[in-house]
Amino acid sequence: MRKFKLTLAYDGTAYHGWQSQNSGRGVADQIESALARLFPSAPRLTSSSRTDTGVHARGLVTHFEVPCTESRIPARQLALAINAGLPDDVRVIAATRAPASFHARFDATAKEYRYSIWNHPAMDPLARHRAWHVPRLLDLAAMRSAAVHFVGTHDFRAFTTKRDGRLGAPLRTVNRCEIVRRGAEITFRIEASGFLYKMCRGIVGTLVQVGEGRCPAGQVLEMLASHDRRTTGSNAPAHGLVLWQVFYRPRGQ
Amino acid sequence: MRKFKLTLAYDGTAYHGWQSQNSGRGVADQIESALARLFPSAPRLTSSSRTDTGVHARGLVTHFEVPCTESRIPARQLALAINAGLPDDVRVIAATRAPASFHARFDATAKEYRYSIWNHPAMDPLARHRAWHVPRLLDLAAMRSAAVHFVGTHDFRAFTTKRDGRLGAPLRTVNRCEIVRRGAEITFRIEASGFLYKMCRGIVGTLVQVGEGRCPAGQVLEMLASHDRRTTGSNAPAHGLVLWQVFYRPRGQ
Repeated sequence: MRKFKLTLAYDGTAYHGWQSQNSGRGVADQIESALARLFPSAPRLTSSSRTDTGVHARGLVTHFEVPCTESRIPARQLALAINAGLPDDVRVIAATRAPASFHARFDATAKEYRYSIWNHPAMDPLARHRAWHVPRLLDLAAMRSAAVHFVGTHDFRAFTTKRDGRLGAPLRTVNRCEIVRRGAEITFRIEASGFLYKMCRGIVGTLVQVGEGRCPAGQVLEMLASHDRRTTGSNAPAHGLVLWQVFYRPRGQ
Repeated sequence: MRKFKLTLAYDGTAYHGWQSQNSGRGVADQIESALARLFPSAPRLTSSSRTDTGVHARGLVTHFEVPCTESRIPARQLALAINAGLPDDVRVIAATRAPASFHARFDATAKEYRYSIWNHPAMDPLARHRAWHVPRLLDLAAMRSAAVHFVGTHDFRAFTTKRDGRLGAPLRTVNRCEIVRRGAEITFRIEASGFLYKMCRGIVGTLVQVGEGRCPAGQVLEMLASHDRRTTGSNAPAHGLVLWQVFYRPRGQ
């Protein structure tokens, strides 16, 4: 078998998330259909992450395997060949050969999500599918004071939503939680060893509560300690979120 | 009569340009419909600019007048009131009272357009409606050398397209023609006293020819001197172009 690694970007607006069990409107379905046209074995994708309905990606990583007899397309032409079979809201941005031992999910050491807010009384129409419109002027200094509390290893139970009734181990390490403003656009850059279900949107929703003056910055510490979802802000909506990149250990280490 | 100045932003993807004579699918039609719900006199808009099919705006300026008896909405609530009647791809980003002498077109002293290119083998799906995909790596240094030749007062006949068989006076003054790269995105910032029809897209199309090595940077001087459309590059497509801002003389000068 030959293994390939694909880095994907997509506009999640039209999709029921990364993988949809029933509707066939998952992003993965689109790519697997395109792969089936190139490889008779119709390989299935293994993904670093599952994004929710409406969430976007700029650097989601996947892998797939095909029998050696089928892999006649050189890796450098593979992205082009797959893209030719994809709708224009999904794109392979890089395709490379991967060692047999590579695993897109288990080898990931960290992930970065970015979340965009349009902070102006009127929404920018060109940003409406990729940024959350928050009309009230946010207090950036307060939000930054609160953001530092998320950095480090914490039990993030208060910032997640149960998926299929399950929670999973609640400890995660946040390496970075930065807030950048460019004009009316505020971008959250959150990098962590991993994210609980809807954890990123829970963090952003809470930071916006702080930015609107509805909750003091220091209260984040109490929320983390509470392990209770009811203490935190509501989730920020899906369409502002982008899976930005997935980190792997450099080869040979 | 009371005069108001509106600053508008829109995603031009779904529209037949600013003003469509027949189809009713012009951006202006949307705003005039929203105004008609607020003002019985159904005011018409006078615009600083007419953008083409598929071109976007972040700061197009218009004005309209209503009888004093109708203008009960305070200016600071006007943007909100108009936006309530608009589809989400068109937004009033500012509404202010304007002096009776103000004219959105005749008082404009300069305009800035921005043009975005996604310069990577694979298009970013989230940018596909607002940036032109140029897969071949562009030579930024060559493009910048060529761009400086546009600055100054020139006869721009070679960089325009006749509209309705007419050309108009061909002299324009370009104050700024800068090229900025941020990752895979290249943005052209072009500010001029005014633009001939499709002049901005003609300039960008030519600069991309230079960036692809299909034409030396110095040839722009010969193109300008030729006054001949056939010497220049083809127009860059509409969907990468944004009318960014319109400049007016400060009041009292």
